[in-house]
Amino acid sequence: MHILIIGAAGMVGRKLTEALVRSGEVGGKPIARLTLADVVAAAAPKTEAAVETLALDLSAPGAAASLVGKRPDLIFHLAAIVSGEAEADFEKGYRINLDGTRDLLEAIRREGQTAPYLPRLVFTSSIAVFGAPFPDAIDDEFFSTPLTSYGTQKAIGELLLNDYSRKGFVDGVGIRLPTIVVRPGKPNLAASGFFSNILREPLSGKEAVLPVSRDVRHWFASPRAAVGFLLHAATLDSAALGWRRTVSAPGLSATVGEEIEALRRIAGDKAVKLIREEADPTIVRIVAGWPRNFDTRRALALGFVAERSMDEIIRAHVEDELGGKIGG
Amino acid sequence: MHILIIGAAGMVGRKLTEALVRSGEVGGKPIARLTLADVVAAAAPKTEAAVETLALDLSAPGAAASLVGKRPDLIFHLAAIVSGEAEADFEKGYRINLDGTRDLLEAIRREGQTAPYLPRLVFTSSIAVFGAPFPDAIDDEFFSTPLTSYGTQKAIGELLLNDYSRKGFVDGVGIRLPTIVVRPGKPNLAASGFFSNILREPLSGKEAVLPVSRDVRHWFASPRAAVGFLLHAATLDSAALGWRRTVSAPGLSATVGEEIEALRRIAGDKAVKLIREEADPTIVRIVAGWPRNFDTRRALALGFVAERSMDEIIRAHVEDELGGKIGG
Repeated sequence: MHILIIGAAGMVGRKLTEALVRSGEVGGKPIARLTLADVVAAAAPKTEAAVETLALDLSAPGAAASLVGKRPDLIFHLAAIVSGEAEADFEKGYRINLDGTRDLLEAIRREGQTAPYLPRLVFTSSIAVFGAPFPDAIDDEFFSTPLTSYGTQKAIGELLLNDYSRKGFVDGVGIRLPTIVVRPGKPNLAASGFFSNILREPLSGKEAVLPVSRDVRHWFASPRAAVGFLLHAATLDSAALGWRRTVSAPGLSATVGEEIEALRRIAGDKAVKLIREEADPTIVRIVAGWPRNFDTRRALALGFVAERSMDEIIRAHVEDELGGKIGG
Repeated sequence: MHILIIGAAGMVGRKLTEALVRSGEVGGKPIARLTLADVVAAAAPKTEAAVETLALDLSAPGAAASLVGKRPDLIFHLAAIVSGEAEADFEKGYRINLDGTRDLLEAIRREGQTAPYLPRLVFTSSIAVFGAPFPDAIDDEFFSTPLTSYGTQKAIGELLLNDYSRKGFVDGVGIRLPTIVVRPGKPNLAASGFFSNILREPLSGKEAVLPVSRDVRHWFASPRAAVGFLLHAATLDSAALGWRRTVSAPGLSATVGEEIEALRRIAGDKAVKLIREEADPTIVRIVAGWPRNFDTRRALALGFVAERSMDEIIRAHVEDELGGKIGG
């Protein structure tokens, strides 16, 4: 089969590519061809499949059509301008997150007009489609009232995915990903970065700053679980979704304090002492507007699987990123 | 003040224009200028205000900018491809209902970049943003899962209206209108047409066909109430809406049987005998997927007012359309 990944150079895209190359198949079908697209060319993996890496802007005229014209059987659409940037650059956010997604859906619909074509499209949505105030746990029927342009663009993407699927133009499956911890790499400026920083840095013997109080609760899954969601979305029977094609992925609701205690169990007091508490009122305010917990019985019934403890999430990081070695 | 009505030639647009001309003011401010736009030129009303009628396609390049460039203080956006046509002509529905609405919002945002500009935009959404299965009454927090392209396009319009309002580009207020009865004019082919036909035709001494059973329940308001919603949306304090800028308008939940009994009270058995029951399985199936009742406490708290009985709705028709005279 031919797989297209749009947004292949990002963290999740890279890990998805690695997982695909490792297994060599999806749902029992061997991967013959892999097209990796992003605004910057992704690294080409070593594999027996034919690999093409493309640097392109999905919203540029003809870009989506050129990707879809090769008729991939399975498309992962992971490309997005992230929340902070979409809020700061209104036009860019709408251009990539809304127009890019719509261009892709339109390209698939038009390709289907030339000869029958119904690829599975896996779309990453976000818990940012929900806006405060929240119930204790956001269930599968909670209404979508985004409070950011990014959340608005993702909510529109979900509506389009439903309608194009209902009309028989695409076989879409959307997933609202939890916040990914432990995010590998260096600390970045994303408001959510500290959730990973306070684990990743101490695990390598480095200091990290905690800008909020320990009772802050949030919704997490590991990069390994996120890749698992995407692969499951690629193969599940989409008829079970009806015309509500996007599900909130399962995850772990945990407090910062629970993150720290799990770190202590796995890496000891020495690691925990590397966390410096330094309140940042801006981050405190932003985080207060984020979901804390979900009731994802729909995704669980569909077979999506996430970690059940923060210990599990940290161990996945130690295995996948640190070669099993703690302490830097 | 300068008022722009987009979709001025439609039934609601004509009645809104009449009401504006009759009062000569909105929220205490005299109407100096009235711009009436639609795909076909609306009839110019007799008024002391300067009137301009324009025939244009809102989604044509430059159309929205040309309307907004005159900096109207108040904009009513009523233009839409209706449900059946948007389902049959996918491209046309998205072009007018999505691109047209987005073009309008973008034109307003860009106009505001040249000099401060924050018009009130009243947007007519639809109860089609909701999809079955429904609770007994759809409340203000029921999730949006449209099952038509029209409903999808309106749901996207609501999301855009929220985001553009939140960013300070427009002062938007959206209203999900109930099904309008009694719709004046001739019977049409809309699947919902019979709800009006079975009242309007007998009131004029003519036969009407009832294609569903009498226990079918639906959600109604008169044309007079719909105009009242629009005028209230034009002047209410939008701060009370927060960033959820669209409300489900109040209405009357009634069965076809209740319509018929109200007709009997107002026009007698003779009128009721003009209703011929002739089941239409297609219409029965379509109607089964429609909302039946709403809990609109948010709109009621905001001061929106609808009819409380079918008798009131029929009397509004007799007064406004038949000069008080029943029987043709």
